[in-house]
Amino acid sequence: MTPSKIVLAYSGGLDTSVILVWLQEQYACPVVAFIANLGQTEAEVAEATEKAHRYGASEVHVADLRDEFARDYAFPMARANAVYEGQYLMGSSIGRPLIAARQAALARRLGADAVAHGATGKGNDQIRFDLTYRALAPELAVIAPWRHWDFKSRSDLLAYAAAKAITVAEAGPSRPVSVDSNLLHTSYEGEVLEDPAIPPPPGLLQRVRDPEDAPGTHELVEIGFEEGDPVSVNGQRLAPGALMGVLGEVGARHGIGRLDVVENRIFGFRTRNIYEAPAATLLWHAHRAVESLVLDPEVAQLKEEFVPKYARLVYRGLWFAPEREMLQAAIDHSQREVTGTATLRLYRGGLQVAGRTSPFSRYDVRLATFEDDHAAFDQADAESWLRVTGIRLAQGSRAGADVEPGELAAVEGVS
Amino acid sequence: MTPSKIVLAYSGGLDTSVILVWLQEQYACPVVAFIANLGQTEAEVAEATEKAHRYGASEVHVADLRDEFARDYAFPMARANAVYEGQYLMGSSIGRPLIAARQAALARRLGADAVAHGATGKGNDQIRFDLTYRALAPELAVIAPWRHWDFKSRSDLLAYAAAKAITVAEAGPSRPVSVDSNLLHTSYEGEVLEDPAIPPPPGLLQRVRDPEDAPGTHELVEIGFEEGDPVSVNGQRLAPGALMGVLGEVGARHGIGRLDVVENRIFGFRTRNIYEAPAATLLWHAHRAVESLVLDPEVAQLKEEFVPKYARLVYRGLWFAPEREMLQAAIDHSQREVTGTATLRLYRGGLQVAGRTSPFSRYDVRLATFEDDHAAFDQADAESWLRVTGIRLAQGSRAGADVEPGELAAVEGVS
Amino acid sequence: MTPSKIVLAYSGGLDTSVILVWLQEQYACPVVAFIANLGQTEAEVAEATEKAHRYGASEVHVADLRDEFARDYAFPMARANAVYEGQYLMGSSIGRPLIAARQAALARRLGADAVAHGATGKGNDQIRFDLTYRALAPELAVIAPWRHWDFKSRSDLLAYAAAKAITVAEAGPSRPVSVDSNLLHTSYEGEVLEDPAIPPPPGLLQRVRDPEDAPGTHELVEIGFEEGDPVSVNGQRLAPGALMGVLGEVGARHGIGRLDVVENRIFGFRTRNIYEAPAATLLWHAHRAVESLVLDPEVAQLKEEFVPKYARLVYRGLWFAPEREMLQAAIDHSQREVTGTATLRLYRGGLQVAGRTSPFSRYDVRLATFEDDHAAFDQADAESWLRVTGIRLAQGSRAGADVEPGELAAVEGVS
Amino acid sequence: MTPSKIVLAYSGGLDTSVILVWLQEQYACPVVAFIANLGQTEAEVAEATEKAHRYGASEVHVADLRDEFARDYAFPMARANAVYEGQYLMGSSIGRPLIAARQAALARRLGADAVAHGATGKGNDQIRFDLTYRALAPELAVIAPWRHWDFKSRSDLLAYAAAKAITVAEAGPSRPVSVDSNLLHTSYEGEVLEDPAIPPPPGLLQRVRDPEDAPGTHELVEIGFEEGDPVSVNGQRLAPGALMGVLGEVGARHGIGRLDVVENRIFGFRTRNIYEAPAATLLWHAHRAVESLVLDPEVAQLKEEFVPKYARLVYRGLWFAPEREMLQAAIDHSQREVTGTATLRLYRGGLQVAGRTSPFSRYDVRLATFEDDHAAFDQADAESWLRVTGIRLAQGSRAGADVEPGELAAVEGVS
Repeated sequence: MTPSKIVLAYSGGLDTSVILVWLQEQYACPVVAFIANLGQTEAEVAEATEKAHRYGASEVHVADLRDEFARDYAFPMARANAVYEGQYLMGSSIGRPLIAARQAALARRLGADAVAHGATGKGNDQIRFDLTYRALAPELAVIAPWRHWDFKSRSDLLAYAAAKAITVAEAGPSRPVSVDSNLLHTSYEGEVLEDPAIPPPPGLLQRVRDPEDAPGTHELVEIGFEEGDPVSVNGQRLAPGALMGVLGEVGARHGIGRLDVVENRIFGFRTRNIYEAPAATLLWHAHRAVESLVLDPEVAQLKEEFVPKYARLVYRGLWFAPEREMLQAAIDHSQREVTGTATLRLYRGGLQVAGRTSPFSRYDVRLATFEDDHAAFDQADAESWLRVTGIRLAQGSRAGADVEPGELAAVEGVS
Repeated sequence: MTPSKIVLAYSGGLDTSVILVWLQEQYACPVVAFIANLGQTEAEVAEATEKAHRYGASEVHVADLRDEFARDYAFPMARANAVYEGQYLMGSSIGRPLIAARQAALARRLGADAVAHGATGKGNDQIRFDLTYRALAPELAVIAPWRHWDFKSRSDLLAYAAAKAITVAEAGPSRPVSVDSNLLHTSYEGEVLEDPAIPPPPGLLQRVRDPEDAPGTHELVEIGFEEGDPVSVNGQRLAPGALMGVLGEVGARHGIGRLDVVENRIFGFRTRNIYEAPAATLLWHAHRAVESLVLDPEVAQLKEEFVPKYARLVYRGLWFAPEREMLQAAIDHSQREVTGTATLRLYRGGLQVAGRTSPFSRYDVRLATFEDDHAAFDQADAESWLRVTGIRLAQGSRAGADVEPGELAAVEGVS
Repeated sequence: MTPSKIVLAYSGGLDTSVILVWLQEQYACPVVAFIANLGQTEAEVAEATEKAHRYGASEVHVADLRDEFARDYAFPMARANAVYEGQYLMGSSIGRPLIAARQAALARRLGADAVAHGATGKGNDQIRFDLTYRALAPELAVIAPWRHWDFKSRSDLLAYAAAKAITVAEAGPSRPVSVDSNLLHTSYEGEVLEDPAIPPPPGLLQRVRDPEDAPGTHELVEIGFEEGDPVSVNGQRLAPGALMGVLGEVGARHGIGRLDVVENRIFGFRTRNIYEAPAATLLWHAHRAVESLVLDPEVAQLKEEFVPKYARLVYRGLWFAPEREMLQAAIDHSQREVTGTATLRLYRGGLQVAGRTSPFSRYDVRLATFEDDHAAFDQADAESWLRVTGIRLAQGSRAGADVEPGELAAVEGVS
Repeated sequence: MTPSKIVLAYSGGLDTSVILVWLQEQYACPVVAFIANLGQTEAEVAEATEKAHRYGASEVHVADLRDEFARDYAFPMARANAVYEGQYLMGSSIGRPLIAARQAALARRLGADAVAHGATGKGNDQIRFDLTYRALAPELAVIAPWRHWDFKSRSDLLAYAAAKAITVAEAGPSRPVSVDSNLLHTSYEGEVLEDPAIPPPPGLLQRVRDPEDAPGTHELVEIGFEEGDPVSVNGQRLAPGALMGVLGEVGARHGIGRLDVVENRIFGFRTRNIYEAPAATLLWHAHRAVESLVLDPEVAQLKEEFVPKYARLVYRGLWFAPEREMLQAAIDHSQREVTGTATLRLYRGGLQVAGRTSPFSRYDVRLATFEDDHAAFDQADAESWLRVTGIRLAQGSRAGADVEPGELAAVEGVS
C-alpha cells in the first residue's frame, strides 16, 4: 500500500529515530510522531519531542498517559494478580496496548491511513502493537520496518544513522542491552544477557538499588485499597500515576523487584530477561494481602485458576481481545469488597507483609482461635464432615496395596 | 466402638502426651506410640521415645522417614511447582499423609483396629490424617480426642497434664503459638499471631535468621536436578533427606523463606500463619529455573494451570486421592528432561536466580538474539502470523468505540 | 432450638404433608405452608393449597414463580451451556435455590425463625435448600425432618400417615419412584430404577412421549434469542415461563430430552436417574446454534472451559455462592450479541439444528468458501503461520523415535 | 528448495491426482504416492492404487491403517470423551496426524526429502499435516500446492485436469461439497452448505440413513470395554478396526450421529459443517456409560475440565504435541478400571443408554437407596456437613438484600 499519512509510535531512541527518517524516505508522505509518556521524566519527553522535530516529523503529539496507564491497565491487571509463567509481572506487556490504542485514535483523528512502530519481527512487542491495531482500528495499515527493510542488524542500523546524521549517543556500540522502562518496571534483554548460565554484569541494572547497597534499616509502607485498586500510600491519597511513582521509588530504594528469568516468547522460543519491577512487586503483594482478608475462599481459588489464563492473554498482546474482557468481568466482580490496607516491610531486596486490615474482613478470631468456642464451630461437625468426604475415598481404597512399603523395615520397636 | 489396640501418632509434645495417657484411661487397651521422624534431631527423637515409654505406651515404634518424605512427597510436589493461594509452599500439608500412611500400615501389621492423632477439630491436619486413613485403610477406626473429649481449651489440657504428672515444660502457659516443623519448613499459628494487622513479635521465629541479622555477603548455591528432582548441592550428590537438610541450613542462614499470610483453611474460614520454609523456597525457585530451559511452552502453560488445582488437593489432605495421582501422572510426564543445574544467590532474605544450565536446554541463542538470522527466523513470517491471528479480532472490532477517550485532550501538538 | 414459627416448603405430596403435621406436633408452633409453582398445573396448585389447609397450616402462601424461574434461573444457566458430567441439564438442581430463596424471604416477612423442607438426608436437594438459606438468611434455623425423626423408611412414613389420616393416594406402595417436575424437566429416581443394568420399565416415564409413539413426521421449531435469552417461538414473542412451557410441549410431543444416567451425587456416591427434559434440551441446542454464529472463537473456548465448573456449582447447590456469580459475570459479558434465531428439527426422539441466523453473525462466506479469495485470506500466510507455530514442535522433535513403528511392515509397494 | 524425491499423501481424488501430476511437472523428480486406508473399501483402495500408477507415481505404497487408527488414535481420544465446541467428535481431525506420521516415516525410509499433501491453505487439515511433519520429521520440506500454485478455484483445477487427461468423474462441477470419510465419520463442507441458515439439501448425506427412513423398530447394541477401550460388540470380541466398522454400520442403519454445526476453524473464522459420525457417537456414549459406574467423582470432574482443552489440541493438529501427551497421561491414568459393558438402544436417529455394568462398579445400592440404612450413611452427618460447608456462605451473606424481590407481591395468602 502507499500510505498518505503515517503515525509513528516514537520514543526518541535510535530505532524509532531511524524509522522516522526511513519512513519519510520510503513513503514520501508526512510522518506524525506520537510520544506516549508512561513514566518518563520531563527531560526525556522534551528531548524526544525535540528530536522528533529534528528528524522531520510533520507533527509531534505528546500524551501524558501515566494516570491512564496506572488506572486502566496496571490496576486491572493487578486485580487479577497476574503473573506470567509463575514469576513475571508483565510491566512491558501491559504498556504496549495503551500506546497502540492512543496511536490508533490519533491516526483516525488526523486522517492518517497507517501506523508504524519500531518493534522487531521476532519479539513480543510487535504482536502487542499489531493486535491492538487490529482489534481497535483494523482499517489502518501497519508498518513495522524491522519486518521489511534490509537492515539485518544493529550495525546496519548504525551505518544508516551515521549516513543520516541521526544521534546515536544513547545507543552506541557499547550499549549492552535492549531496555524498556515505564512506571511499573524496567526490562533488560539481549547482548550480554544472552547466556542464561551467567548473571548480569555488575552495574548493568539501573533502576533498583542492588540489595547489598540498599539501606541498612528496613522501611514500612502502608498501601490503601478501594475495590481492588490502590488509592493511598502511608495514608496519603494519590492519583494513580503518582501512586505508582511513589511505590516505584520506595521499592527501588530497597532493592525490591529484581527478576532474572528465561521466558517463553509468544512465538514459542525462549529469551533471557532481567526485570526490575519495584512498583509492580509492591502492588502485587499488597493487593493479595488485602484480598486474603476479604475474598470468599472459593472465589479466591477460582481467581488462582484464572491467573495463568489471564496472564497469558496479557503477555500475548490480547488486552483488547474479548476473552480478556470476559475474564476481567469475572475478576472485577470479585473486587467489590477488596478495600483496606496492607503494610509491607522492605529490606535489602526482601519484602514481607507486616499487617493487613479491611472494613470487610471476614477473618473471624472466634473461628481461627485454638480455644474451643462451640458457638462458632462444633468440633463434632468435623467428624461428620470427614465421614461424608471420605465415602468416595473409602470406595476407591486400594485395599492396603500401598501401605506396606519396604521402608517399614526402618520402623524399629524400641523396648 | 471399643478398640482393642490403638496406634497413636506421637510427637512427644504436650498434646499427644496427654492423649497417650487419656486413650489408655478411656479405652483400657494397649496404645502403641508411633514416632515419625520427618526432620527432627536425634535428641528430639530420643526424648519422644523416652516419654512414650514413660507415659505408658505398650510399644514404641520409630520410623526415620526423612528420605521418603523428601523423595516421595516433597519432590513430587515440587515437580508441580505447587503453591497454595499464590504463596504458601505447603510444608505442613505434605507431611501428614506420610505420617498417616505409615501409621495405618503399622496398625495393620500389629493387628490394631484404631488409629489416633492429636490434631484439633477445627484445623487442617485432622483432615489430612483422616482422609489418608480413609483412602488407605478404611477399616480402621479413627480416634481424634480433640473432637471428643471434654477439654475445651489449653488450660483444661494443662490441668489434666498436671493431674497425670505429664511434663509441660515445652508447652507451658508462656508458649506463644502452635509450631510444626519438618525438613521443609516450620509453621507458627495462633495466640500472639491471631491479629493479622500486626507483625509477629520479635524473637518468635526460630528457624530462619532474621534478614537484618543474616551474613553481610551473599552466597551462591548450585542445585543439580535429574528428571525434575534435586540430586546434588554445589556438585555434591546427596540422598533426598540430606539434600533437603543442606538446603534448609543454607537458606535459614541467609534469612530465606519467611511468609506471613492469612490463608483459607479447608473448612472455609481464615487463619493467620507464619511460615519459615528455607528448603522448600530454594527448591521451588531452582526447579522452575531448570524447567525454564527445557519445558515446551505449551506444557509450561498447562503446568501453570495445574498449579492451583494440584495445590488445593495437597492442602486439603487429598494426597492419596485419585485425582491427585491423575494430575501427578501428567506432571511427571513433563519432567523427563528437567535435568540440569540452577544457581541461586542468597542475601539477607532475598533470593535471585544467578544462572541455569541443562543438557536438554531448548534455549537457542540464534532465535533469541536481536541480530537478524534469517535461517533461524524470517521476520516476514511474523507479518503473516499477525494477519492470521488478527482475523477474529478485526471481525470483532468495536469500530473505534473505545479509541476516542477523553484523555486525548491531553495530546497536545508541539509546534 | 425451639422455633416460634416455621415456614415449610410444601408440595402437596405425601412427604411434605406428613412433615406439615409432624412439625406442628413436634414444635407446637404455627407452621406456614409455602407453595411454589415452578410449572405445575392450576389443579395441582389448588389441590396442594386445599391440603395445606386440611393438614393444619397456619397460613398458606402460593407463589407463581414460573416467569422468574425461567428468566432468572433457567436462562442464566442456559447462557452458560451448563451440563453436569457431560449429559445432565440440571432441571432439578436449578429449581431448589429459587424455592428456598422465596421461602426464606417469606419467613423473614412473617417473622418466622425457622424454615423446613422435605428433602432427605442423603440426597442433593437438602444441600440446595440448606446452602441457599445459609447464603441468604443465615439467622433462620433449618428443620429437615428426614435428618431428625425416627422414621427409617417409606413404610414408617405410611404408617404415620395412616395414623394421622393423611391421604396417600398419590404415593401408595405401588408408587415406583421419586419424581420431581417443573417447567424444565421431570426426574425419576429410586425403587425400580435402582439397578443401573436394566432400562426403566415400560410406562414409567410420563412426560415425554416414547419416540416409538411420537408423530411420524418431523416438526420445525424456530426459537428467537436476544442477548443470550430466548424471547420467541416460531416468531411469537412469549413471556419466559410461557416460552418454556411451549418448548416443553413441543419437545415432549416428539420424544425429545430423555436421559438415563448414573451420576455422582454431591456426597460422593452414585445414583441412577432418568430425566425427561424437553424444554431444557431444546433451549440448550438452540442457544448453542445462535452462539456459533456470534461468539469470538477464544470466548467460545473459554466458555467451554467454564461449563464443567459452572455446572458443578449449580449441581452442588451453590447458586447463591459468590463464585457462581463471578462466573456468571464472565458468561453474561459474552452474551451481548447472542441475538438471532435457531431452527430445530424434531423427530421421534432426535433433534437436529436446521438453520441459524443472527444480525451479529460473524460467519463470513468469503473466508469460509473453498474458492480462493485473496482479499479475504492469502493462503501464503498459512505457510508463515505454520512455520512460526512449528518452531517449538521442531525443537522438541523426538528425532523420529516414534515414526518407524512396526506397522510399517503393512506398507506394501504395489508395482 | 529443489526436492530430489517427494512422498505425496494420495487419496485418488481429483485434488491429489492433479497434485501428483503437477509435482512431477514442477519439480522434475520422482513422486511417491502414499495411500493410507483409514476405512475405505477394498475397491476404493484398488482404484486409488491404479490411478496413482496411471498419473505417474514413481512408487505406490498402500498402508492399511484401520486397526492402528482405531486403537492408537480414536480410542485414546474416546478415553478423553473429547468433543470440540460442545458437539463435534473430531473424526477428521484425528485422522490426519496418523496419515502424516506414516507418510513422514515412509519418506525417511525411502530417502525422500519432501512430503506433499492436498489440503488447502485456508483449512484445518493442512495444519494437522504440517504440524505432524514438524513434530516428527522437521528436516522434511513440506509442499502444499494449494498454498503455492496459481490455481485460484475449482474451475482452474478442472481446466488443468482436462489438459492433463486426469479423470474428474467423481469430482465434476455437480459435486456439491467437500467430503472426507473414514472409520469414524464422514464430513461435508462447502458449496451448497455455505449458507448456515438452511439445512442440507435432501439426498446429500450418504452415510447415515435419514432417521425418517430408518427401521421402525429399535435395536440394542452392547459394547464391551477393557481399561477404557472397546473390545467387543454384542459379546463378540473384535479387532479395533473391525469393531469400529461394526459400530459404524449399526449406527448408520439407525440414523445415528448426524451433526449440523457452525464451527470455529483454527485460523479463527467459521465454517458450516455436516458430520455423520455413527461409530464415534456410539463409542462416546458407551464409554461414558461405563465410566459412570467406575470413575471417582473428582476424577470424573477433572476429566470434564480436560475435555475442552484436549479437544482443542486434537482439533488444532497438536496430536504429537507434548501437551497432548501430557494430558493423555492423566486421562489414561484414570482408565485402569473402566472395564464393563454398556447397552445402547438405537432408534431413528435417537440413542439411549439402556444399561451398564462393570466388575469395578462403585455404584452401591445401599448408598443410593431411599431407604434409610444407617450403616451405610448416617443422615445426621449431612447436617454437620452442611453446617461446615455453610460457614463461608453465611460469612458472605448479603444480609437479605436479594431475598425481598418485587415478585413477592405475587405470593398471596389463601384463607
